[in-house]
Amino acid sequence: MSLLRFDRTTNDWVVYSPSRALRPHDTRLVPSADGHAEPATCPFCPGNEALTPPEIFAVRPPRGLRSDWSVRVVSNKFPALRIEEDPSRRDEGAMFRSMGGCGAHEVIVESREHTALLCQQPISQIESVLATLQRRLSDLMGDRRFQSIIIFKNHGASAGTSIRHPHWQLIATPVTPRLLRLKQIEATEYFDQTGKCLYCVLLEAELAAGRRILAQNDDYVALCPYASHVPFETWILPRLRQASFGHVSGERLKSLAELLKVVLLKLHTALDNPDFNLTIDTASRGAEDEEYFAWHLRILPRLSTPAGFELGSGMSINTVLPEDAVAFLSEVAVTANHGAANQVATGGG
Amino acid sequence: MSLLRFDRTTNDWVVYSPSRALRPHDTRLVPSADGHAEPATCPFCPGNEALTPPEIFAVRPPRGLRSDWSVRVVSNKFPALRIEEDPSRRDEGAMFRSMGGCGAHEVIVESREHTALLCQQPISQIESVLATLQRRLSDLMGDRRFQSIIIFKNHGASAGTSIRHPHWQLIATPVTPRLLRLKQIEATEYFDQTGKCLYCVLLEAELAAGRRILAQNDDYVALCPYASHVPFETWILPRLRQASFGHVSGERLKSLAELLKVVLLKLHTALDNPDFNLTIDTASRGAEDEEYFAWHLRILPRLSTPAGFELGSGMSINTVLPEDAVAFLSEVAVTANHGAANQVATGGG
Repeated sequence: MSLLRFDRTTNDWVVYSPSRALRPHDTRLVPSADGHAEPATCPFCPGNEALTPPEIFAVRPPRGLRSDWSVRVVSNKFPALRIEEDPSRRDEGAMFRSMGGCGAHEVIVESREHTALLCQQPISQIESVLATLQRRLSDLMGDRRFQSIIIFKNHGASAGTSIRHPHWQLIATPVTPRLLRLKQIEATEYFDQTGKCLYCVLLEAELAAGRRILAQNDDYVALCPYASHVPFETWILPRLRQASFGHVSGERLKSLAELLKVVLLKLHTALDNPDFNLTIDTASRGAEDEEYFAWHLRILPRLSTPAGFELGSGMSINTVLPEDAVAFLSEVAVTANHGAANQVATGGG
Repeated sequence: MSLLRFDRTTNDWVVYSPSRALRPHDTRLVPSADGHAEPATCPFCPGNEALTPPEIFAVRPPRGLRSDWSVRVVSNKFPALRIEEDPSRRDEGAMFRSMGGCGAHEVIVESREHTALLCQQPISQIESVLATLQRRLSDLMGDRRFQSIIIFKNHGASAGTSIRHPHWQLIATPVTPRLLRLKQIEATEYFDQTGKCLYCVLLEAELAAGRRILAQNDDYVALCPYASHVPFETWILPRLRQASFGHVSGERLKSLAELLKVVLLKLHTALDNPDFNLTIDTASRGAEDEEYFAWHLRILPRLSTPAGFELGSGMSINTVLPEDAVAFLSEVAVTANHGAANQVATGGG
C-alpha cells in the first residue's frame, strides 16, 4: 500500500509507504534485513538475480547469460510508489486530501562489483550507467500519470544506504515535487524578467568569479555553488543548456562520465570516502523543452547533521564556504584515467 | 565570522558560520571537542559556570550563589549568527548577494542534571524552561534587526546533539526563514479565502476525526498530524489561538508543560528513548498579533534518515501512518505526575 497526503500548512505532498516498515514502530529496521549482506547473499551480485524482483532492463552482451549483465535495473523490493495505485484525489472533508501512491521505484545496479565505488569504475562503465538512467527516464516519462522522475544515488549509512552493493534509484512521482516546482518557478520568473536561463547566467557568473570552479571540460563545469547548502556541495552544470537530462547526446554522456569521475575522486580522496547523496535534477513533464531551465547534477556530502534549526526554519547552516571547499579540494590531484587526463582541466579559468 | 548568502535558485538564504568548524574539512568535528564531557568538565553542569560564555539570564532564588541556578541561558560558544554583524545587503554582480550574519544564538540549560531528560523533569521545571524561552523570545524581538526567533531542542546524536547535558537553543535570524515564510503565506491565503485560521480549522478537523489525537487537556491538543512528514511526528496545538508563543499566559504555560511531559513520556517509553528534534514555530516580526496564524510545537523523532529522494525532491517519505503511530503510542500508559494525572486525558474525544 502506498499513498500521498497533502500537507495544507506547507502546500506539498508527503509520500506514505507503510509496507517499507515491518510494523509501525519498526522504522529503524527499514527497509530490509539484507542491508549489509555479503556477496554470497547480496541481491545485487551476479548469480543472485533470483533474489531481486523482476528485471526491467539490463546491459548485456548479445546472447549473454542471465548473469552476464554489466548494469541491471530491477523494481525496488520495498517501493515507495507503485504503478498499480490510482492517482485520483480523495477528500475527507475540507482538510484531508490524499491520492494513491501511483508511481515507480527502480534500482539501477551500477556494476557487478560488490564493493567498488562509482569513482573507481572505468569511464565507460559510468557512461553506461548514465545511459541506462536516461533510458529509464525516457521510458517512465512515457506514462503520462508520472509528472517527475527523481534520479538519485545514496552512498554510505548516514546518506541512507541500506544495501552496500553500489546502486542508483529512480522514483517516478504523480506530482511535481516541492523542490523541483520551487526551482522551476524561480527559473520561470527569472526568464520572464530577463529572457535568460537562470542556471546559464549563474554558470557564467561562477566562471567569471572563478574561485568556486572545481573542474571543467569542453561540455561541463563542476563547481561548489556560491550559496551551497552543505559543506562541499558540488554541482555539475552543462555548457549546452538542455532542460531535460534525457536530451543529452551520447557523446556528451561520455564527457559527463569523465567529469563526474574526476569530481567523485576528488571528494573521495580529500574527504576520506565521505557519505553522500547525488541527484540529477531534470525538468518535470511539460517543461522538458523549455528554455528557462537547465538540468544539473548535485552531490551533497553528508558531513554534518541537520538539526532543530534546520527543521524549524527550513534554512541550512553551512560551516564551510564553497571557496574554501574548492581550495581544499584543489590540492588533490586526480585524473579520470590515462586517456581522459588531458581533457579535464581542474580549477578555475 | 558569520554571513548569509542568497540562493537564487530556491529564493532563500543559507547561513554560513565557518568558525564553527576548526578547519575547512573538519566538519565532522563541529561544534566542539567537549561534546560528551562528563559532569566534572561539562560546561552546563553547576559549578562549571566559568566554562561557558557570559550568562544572559538565569532562574535563581533571591540572594542565590552563582551556581544556585535552576535554568541558565548563555551565548552559544560557536554561534551561527552574531549580534555584531551588519545585516545590510551586499551584491557582487547580479548573481551573488550576501549579508552579515546578524542575529543571536543562545543556549538554555534546562536543568542542573547532566543526564535527566526533559520528560523526567517535574512539571514545574518544564514550566520554568518554557517561561525562560518566552522571556528570551520577548527580549530578542526587541531588537528590530531580528525578524524571527527559531526555538528548538535537539535530543540524541542523530538529532545533532553535541553536548549531552539537556538544553534548548534559540537563534534569532535577520530574515524570515523559508519554512516559516511558507507556512505564513499558506495560512494568509487560507485566511483571505475563509476568514479563518488554518491551524484552528485543522485542529477542529483533527478533533472531529479523532484517530490522530494523542492526548489533550483544557488548553492544548497533542496529535500526529494527517500529513506527518516523519514517523511519529507529534504536534501540540493551543485551543486558544495566539500567533506568538510569547503571548501565552503563565497559567497556560503550566498546562503546556503538563501536556508536553505526557507526550514526551509516551514517545520515550514506546520508542525506547528516541532521538528527536523539537521546535516551537512562532510568528515572525509583524505577524505576532495576526489572526491567520497559531504558534505550535512540533516534535520530530529521528527514526529514519532523509536520503537522495528527499534531498532531490524536497518531499518526505514516511513509513508510518499517523493513525498507526497514535494507536501504537496509546498502548503506553503514562501520567504527568500525581497531581496532573486527572487533568490529562489521552486518546481522542
